[in-house]
Amino acid sequence: MLRHLISAADLSRDDAVLILDTAEEMARVADRPIKKLPTLRGRTVVNLFFEDSTRTRISFEAAEKRLSADVINFAAKGSSVSKGESLKDTAQTLEAMGVDAVVIRHGASGAPYRLATSGWIDAAVVNAGDGTHQHPTQALLDAFTLRRRLIGPDAGLGRDLAGKRVVIVGDILHSRVARSNVDLLHTLGADVVLVAPPTLLPVGVETWPCEVSYDLDSALAACDAVMMLRVQAERMNAAFFPTEREYSRRYGLDGDRMARLPEHAIVMHPGPMVRGMEITADVADSPRCTVVEQVANGVSIRMAVLYLLLGGTEPAV
Amino acid sequence: MLRHLISAADLSRDDAVLILDTAEEMARVADRPIKKLPTLRGRTVVNLFFEDSTRTRISFEAAEKRLSADVINFAAKGSSVSKGESLKDTAQTLEAMGVDAVVIRHGASGAPYRLATSGWIDAAVVNAGDGTHQHPTQALLDAFTLRRRLIGPDAGLGRDLAGKRVVIVGDILHSRVARSNVDLLHTLGADVVLVAPPTLLPVGVETWPCEVSYDLDSALAACDAVMMLRVQAERMNAAFFPTEREYSRRYGLDGDRMARLPEHAIVMHPGPMVRGMEITADVADSPRCTVVEQVANGVSIRMAVLYLLLGGTEPAV
Amino acid sequence: MLRHLISAADLSRDDAVLILDTAEEMARVADRPIKKLPTLRGRTVVNLFFEDSTRTRISFEAAEKRLSADVINFAAKGSSVSKGESLKDTAQTLEAMGVDAVVIRHGASGAPYRLATSGWIDAAVVNAGDGTHQHPTQALLDAFTLRRRLIGPDAGLGRDLAGKRVVIVGDILHSRVARSNVDLLHTLGADVVLVAPPTLLPVGVETWPCEVSYDLDSALAACDAVMMLRVQAERMNAAFFPTEREYSRRYGLDGDRMARLPEHAIVMHPGPMVRGMEITADVADSPRCTVVEQVANGVSIRMAVLYLLLGGTEPAV
Repeated sequence: MLRHLISAADLSRDDAVLILDTAEEMARVADRPIKKLPTLRGRTVVNLFFEDSTRTRISFEAAEKRLSADVINFAAKGSSVSKGESLKDTAQTLEAMGVDAVVIRHGASGAPYRLATSGWIDAAVVNAGDGTHQHPTQALLDAFTLRRRLIGPDAGLGRDLAGKRVVIVGDILHSRVARSNVDLLHTLGADVVLVAPPTLLPVGVETWPCEVSYDLDSALAACDAVMMLRVQAERMNAAFFPTEREYSRRYGLDGDRMARLPEHAIVMHPGPMVRGMEITADVADSPRCTVVEQVANGVSIRMAVLYLLLGGTEPAV
Repeated sequence: MLRHLISAADLSRDDAVLILDTAEEMARVADRPIKKLPTLRGRTVVNLFFEDSTRTRISFEAAEKRLSADVINFAAKGSSVSKGESLKDTAQTLEAMGVDAVVIRHGASGAPYRLATSGWIDAAVVNAGDGTHQHPTQALLDAFTLRRRLIGPDAGLGRDLAGKRVVIVGDILHSRVARSNVDLLHTLGADVVLVAPPTLLPVGVETWPCEVSYDLDSALAACDAVMMLRVQAERMNAAFFPTEREYSRRYGLDGDRMARLPEHAIVMHPGPMVRGMEITADVADSPRCTVVEQVANGVSIRMAVLYLLLGGTEPAV
Repeated sequence: MLRHLISAADLSRDDAVLILDTAEEMARVADRPIKKLPTLRGRTVVNLFFEDSTRTRISFEAAEKRLSADVINFAAKGSSVSKGESLKDTAQTLEAMGVDAVVIRHGASGAPYRLATSGWIDAAVVNAGDGTHQHPTQALLDAFTLRRRLIGPDAGLGRDLAGKRVVIVGDILHSRVARSNVDLLHTLGADVVLVAPPTLLPVGVETWPCEVSYDLDSALAACDAVMMLRVQAERMNAAFFPTEREYSRRYGLDGDRMARLPEHAIVMHPGPMVRGMEITADVADSPRCTVVEQVANGVSIRMAVLYLLLGGTEPAV
């Protein structure tokens, strides 16, 4: 097993399947009379967030507390970082305090990698999203959701996603979610199709292990899942796309389009959704849409990752 | 027992008395060698604060931790709410994460009601103050303070406030504290008199289950308690009232006025006080003023509410 | 033992040595399978920070959690303090909630003293830095670091710093760290030399129990430790000093200067360092520089202080 979780691309198929299998065990903790494991008692986990992300922070915090860790939240805004403290000083400070794991969210792509590989700390580093680069626990929770829905919680154990076809739609250019999913889904044997306006595709996408299409409707006709990305309005402008309405018409998912999906196919979204933009309200609220399950699965995945990285001494369940 | 606590008006007399009696048990936890109960071990409580209110948040947090819950604080400012996330999405996210209770503070009247009745979540919802509408745990802690002081901790068990007379003074118009107290005190059999400048009384107050008076001195002459509301300077303006000095003279409580209260009557305030405005320093610091006890009682009441809503499996004490 | 920790000047030699010895025990907790003590189970500690200081807050929070306390963070910004609540009201509120200890950081010199001596609260008060006045746990962790490095962890038990010579360099005028260290080091029998530009020395420094020098190089030639203070750029201006370069040349520590220290002497810094200003990168990263150890020792010292102030009922280790 890895010492850190920086990028979905670092995970071997066996690493990834082990995390998914462990997450199935963690999901069962919620059924216990006391919904906690003692695994990380006495271990300290710091949530080091240089960017606001309440959803991700709360998901990690819930996972950490369910494993009985001591949790310290560190929102870097207004901290000594603004007094000129470098990432190195912050890292050495946390290390010196005896922190066992650092969950880091950073606006700069590569910051978690630097933290993990610099030699500044021995603590396990978990990337909770860095710039436009990676968000590996999001990719893992998405893979977990796909396996549960398309194969089954028990039937899925030990298995990857070989032969499954996933369409990812929207602003690929700025999306660490898309990037992480392409890497992990490929490792797990799935076929990935990206659908996006040309201006929202990154340079070099042709070298990624996936197909690219500009025609959403034909891509949807033969897939097992469609993953809609959040449209970040602040990144949309006239240079990229004429109007919101035009975007919705060509790249949004509405009831008509959903009806043309194969019957077993699911609709995914990392949340928060912009209803009426990339997804209509009826699709968002349909039973095919897994956005709420993905959130639940996020806690199980994060418990599994922390459990495996920190090498809990007790049996998992 | 109710599944949620949204409004003091929802509580039956028996519900309210059960909460007060349970709070008496909770108050005794502070005398134990280890001042905690294991009741909510493994349960997660989220404090979802859309408005700043450090006092109320800390009181709930202390109550939650004394019951051994896992606590997650969520200050909605700067969160994904500002990325266009709706209350519904936030609710579904928390539900999916397996949250057992949501303590919500919101600037919009009715937000906790929507959260509890929308079907978005199964978690228990506790209103920690919504707009100018309700603040039911404040009313409960006030009733608890009244019962302890006017009847007694042990003598009060099982009893309501029948026949007690409470005068509430100040900005009724903007006060969820006043509104909640009128509802609960009426349910518990007390008589309530509101005293306020006409411009600080809400439309329709004549339908409330209480009396209204413009003459503070005569109201004080025959009461068991006077509850001074905080004057929110930002809501006072020339249209409402000429000057602060004039307000203090007519509606403030000073030593002279306090001396005219019946000997056994107490002075209450929800805090924080604006000394020199609605209350003078000598009154605020007198032994008749229960402002500090009210804070202590707040923790016991919040423990009782969470204990009863989450149905602790262990005996209370 | 004291009831509060407000100023390093309040500590007798025996108090200080007891804290250092207890911190040695606390440092060993990190070697246990479960890195926690049950000492403060059921006790509530509030970190009441009127000034941002992530490092200090996290250090206290880690210490409190390692002692199993319930921890409540209270950043006073945006709290009811801004609604006109006085320190007295805040104190009484915390007291009423049953808080056992308040760790306070405040921009105004003397605020922790007022909190501790006003009679408003029974809780133990720990000063985590007040204005330009005191930062006693910083002085204690510095003394702990000195004793460990210059005498040894085991050999140092029960001993003070008699005969050791410590040079403190930089902005003495604004530094609570310097002030606290002068007091404590003097109590522990060490000799202290201050080196600073005349404009960065406080009025009345000649009455402090230490020497003052304007010549860094001669002071360094015969010391056991040099403690570099952080230069607070916002407090440097033309009136105090011509240029940053000139400051570095005369009062900064670079490799050449470090080479002229006695071989056993250590380089200390309270962090965060401004590399290139008061200290060069090569000195900061050299094995003689104890900045990272000081951080680690900070957790042990804070555990020891809280353990001793709150009178843990269980044996320490």
